Amino acid sequence: MSGQLAIGIDIGGTKVAGGAVDASGTVLARSRRDTPDRSKSPEVVENTIVEVVDELVETVRSDGLGEVVAVGIGAAGFVAADRATVVFAPHLSWRHEPLREALARRVQVPITVDNDANAAAWAEWKFGAARGETHLMIVNLGTGIGGGTVIDGQVQRGRYGIAGEFGHMQVVPNGLRCECGNKGCWEQYASGNALVREARALIAAGSPVAEDLLSGVGGDPSKLTGPLITAAAQSGDPTAIELLAEIGEWLGVGIANLAAAFDPGTFVIGGGVSAAGPLLLDPAREMFRRQLTGRGYRPEAKIVAAELGNEAGLIGAADLARLGQ
Amino acid sequence: MSGQLAIGIDIGGTKVAGGAVDASGTVLARSRRDTPDRSKSPEVVENTIVEVVDELVETVRSDGLGEVVAVGIGAAGFVAADRATVVFAPHLSWRHEPLREALARRVQVPITVDNDANAAAWAEWKFGAARGETHLMIVNLGTGIGGGTVIDGQVQRGRYGIAGEFGHMQVVPNGLRCECGNKGCWEQYASGNALVREARALIAAGSPVAEDLLSGVGGDPSKLTGPLITAAAQSGDPTAIELLAEIGEWLGVGIANLAAAFDPGTFVIGGGVSAAGPLLLDPAREMFRRQLTGRGYRPEAKIVAAELGNEAGLIGAADLARLGQ
Repeated sequence: MSGQLAIGIDIGGTKVAGGAVDASGTVLARSRRDTPDRSKSPEVVENTIVEVVDELVETVRSDGLGEVVAVGIGAAGFVAADRATVVFAPHLSWRHEPLREALARRVQVPITVDNDANAAAWAEWKFGAARGETHLMIVNLGTGIGGGTVIDGQVQRGRYGIAGEFGHMQVVPNGLRCECGNKGCWEQYASGNALVREARALIAAGSPVAEDLLSGVGGDPSKLTGPLITAAAQSGDPTAIELLAEIGEWLGVGIANLAAAFDPGTFVIGGGVSAAGPLLLDPAREMFRRQLTGRGYRPEAKIVAAELGNEAGLIGAADLARLGQ
Repeated sequence: MSGQLAIGIDIGGTKVAGGAVDASGTVLARSRRDTPDRSKSPEVVENTIVEVVDELVETVRSDGLGEVVAVGIGAAGFVAADRATVVFAPHLSWRHEPLREALARRVQVPITVDNDANAAAWAEWKFGAARGETHLMIVNLGTGIGGGTVIDGQVQRGRYGIAGEFGHMQVVPNGLRCECGNKGCWEQYASGNALVREARALIAAGSPVAEDLLSGVGGDPSKLTGPLITAAAQSGDPTAIELLAEIGEWLGVGIANLAAAFDPGTFVIGGGVSAAGPLLLDPAREMFRRQLTGRGYRPEAKIVAAELGNEAGLIGAADLARLGQ
């Protein structure tokens, strides 16, 4: 092997995942760290990124996998149109952070920065669940909601680079407070955080329906996570199933709103929560059909699970960097 | 004059407005009818359109204004990607109506059909308030809300032609019932209909603050209209000012949602209610600034009044038809 590879780094609220990716979207080497706590300085996150890049460069070299020609960062934040600066990140400590410049001093190849969900949307369009789709929107349910739009093979970044923050559309007036500072944001109702919050609320209310979930974490609600709730649902726990359905219904409400505004052909649902599969997507599809304006008179968007799983972001970031897009 | 003209027809919930438009966007001749009541058959609306077209063709001919080469229809409805069929119209009687075909039998030049707000967005981008803007969204407050998006000089119509139905994004869960069949649609809170409904509700409640509005229509609330409320506000009636501010605040909420998703550089606010000017736009701008996610860290979209007023729709429909777009 001697192809041109790009390294993609996906920086989410909980993990920094990196991969060396070839032109076909195949991940040839992987590296992974926990995301430093957001109380930490931006430099700590940058150190983590550089560690992951260095490890991957070394693996590519020692295993003779090819040549690393670019690094693409997909960050869970608002990335400016300069594709270099993270202006704001609800779930990270970055504020007007000149990320590309900071990394360029320590990395030897060209770097591009993008929003993580933009990168994932690109990957699912090019290699994944929405190949050939002219109008794709991705909704990634993780810590919050990441969003991206690809129209006619172009990532839509908006006038200032910050398009796709679907999770911060208000769905409930005066609703739950969001990390972004607003109230009632969609991601407060449809995300991994929302899933865990609701499960803990059930436990705190002393509800007997939450007993199995609580005993599953040895009686310590702070140990409850999204993946544990999903696993419980997949084992048949009716409360966990209901909690996921509620997230799915809010997902359906929000994508009906997006369909009203942008009328895509396909919604790709990704992110950690999407591992729940039909337990999430069936309630979402049902609510979407009930909420879509003009339903019955119009063709309806498909709602499909992401195909590239947790690696969509890093694959897309790498591919966009390799192409200089 | 012997230039190539196009006829543009704007079909709204209350009026059918037509104009003969030249390549610079200037309206050289006008014609206008009331929109037939939606209890009437689609054919009645089509007759009205043909009357307006025939009258304009005759005026262009007799006044030697040029040559009519195309007719563009901008309709307040969901127009399919074929640019020929109105699949659904909350405020009109059309359901899967093959409008272009019906008109083509009676009109001698090529016809294109578009959503009225798409046409208005195009006109404001090409000739009006958003010239040179790469990312424009229009929000037209009339009977309901019409919406359109122009990115890099392309009207965004979505996968199936139905993008831009911003008015049917849900802003209040289980909220007011909408003509589209859903509940809580944005246009139930920010539109001419919403303005009149709220004023009548004040009157029905017997509130003394509505006395001036009521006496302005001779004691008959059914005579109250959006323009009358706007006129009252412009004369200083504090209740009318408050009613418009409430519409403006909901406008601000909704455009903050659109900004989160699409990050445009300019929002153009048009439609009949926009005649209220700062009485509508100042509260909208203030609410937008309070609701925009990431505010303070990002460049913010401009919110500007439409420049082409009520004629944006017909000018845009004509220009798109002339260009075959």
